[in-house]
Amino acid sequence: MNVSVLFSGGKDSSLSAILLDQFFDVELVTCSFSVLPIGDIAKKAAEELGFPHRVLKLDNEILENAFNIIVKDGFPKNAIDHIHHKAVETLASDDGVVAIADGIRRDDRVPLLTNPQVHSIEDRYGVHYICPLRGYGRAAVNALVKQYLVIEEGQSDEIIKADYETELREVIRQRIGQDGIDKIFPSHVQSRVIGRVN
Amino acid sequence: MNVSVLFSGGKDSSLSAILLDQFFDVELVTCSFSVLPIGDIAKKAAEELGFPHRVLKLDNEILENAFNIIVKDGFPKNAIDHIHHKAVETLASDDGVVAIADGIRRDDRVPLLTNPQVHSIEDRYGVHYICPLRGYGRAAVNALVKQYLVIEEGQSDEIIKADYETELREVIRQRIGQDGIDKIFPSHVQSRVIGRVN
Repeated sequence: MNVSVLFSGGKDSSLSAILLDQFFDVELVTCSFSVLPIGDIAKKAAEELGFPHRVLKLDNEILENAFNIIVKDGFPKNAIDHIHHKAVETLASDDGVVAIADGIRRDDRVPLLTNPQVHSIEDRYGVHYICPLRGYGRAAVNALVKQYLVIEEGQSDEIIKADYETELREVIRQRIGQDGIDKIFPSHVQSRVIGRVN
Repeated sequence: MNVSVLFSGGKDSSLSAILLDQFFDVELVTCSFSVLPIGDIAKKAAEELGFPHRVLKLDNEILENAFNIIVKDGFPKNAIDHIHHKAVETLASDDGVVAIADGIRRDDRVPLLTNPQVHSIEDRYGVHYICPLRGYGRAAVNALVKQYLVIEEGQSDEIIKADYETELREVIRQRIGQDGIDKIFPSHVQSRVIGRVN
């Protein structure tokens, strides 16, 4: 079975692809609004991992809605959840996509689909939605990452990743300025995959 | 890393072991109160799968508590959850056990550990608790089972499995009779693994 793994170039989506590799034909898919060249960044990481990769252009209305949500809320969760939900739906509507996976871990809070959202997507589009790391805690993920991946880590404003946050931050920077980013996004450690251990 | 997979001989715990196989050294562990020879049933299935297997004797006080819970409740969920929680704790306290896995799927309701129970076990015993199928829906599990396992299916009173329910049903049969079982347990389809597709 083919599976399309939503891919940010980070350790969680990379490890998810590796866990699926033996049982599925894996392609990596990076969603982008074309605000920044995050597709190129992800493509490089995908090449290091040895998986086929493509960029899925998302409708800019999704980004506009996410911008309105995050400005109203003052925190990122609902905006990121919105982009993720629409990204999964967009990918699910692609011809030939039968299974979609992402890198969400057991203790993740953002982004999350609710169970009703998951069942609705699976039923409407006839796809499987799979989270290979959903039953793994942070320590178990880190142990596997150490064994199978080479990563670099840094604060979220230093590491350019191909995730939803990157382009949303850029839009906020353009329209509100760096102050807006500092107010809305908590600083947190990001990882980027730079190699695979075979 | 070693992982001890709680093993009932059913399709979910078998598939979990197969998903982990490439990344961990897998042993299968069947918990038993020695009420029925379920360890032997599981051993046969484990041999078909090609994994090392052992039986873990659980304290009979756990079964007594589960019996009291199920008689008081009139339905199985809390009693099965109790046995599962104590089984994971017993296994976690074994010397040399560093990771424990089970076959719980995304949409399973029984048995379940709560997130606080999981974090408490991981912290107290220094183990990883992993549910490889937690991010898979029923249809995705069935597709993988079809590809990798040979199973037989039947109603829960026809298929003898090596799960918590089997010995709890037997105790109820001995003490209350078949009527007790029919009242407490909803009839449901069980699976038993009889082979592996390589």
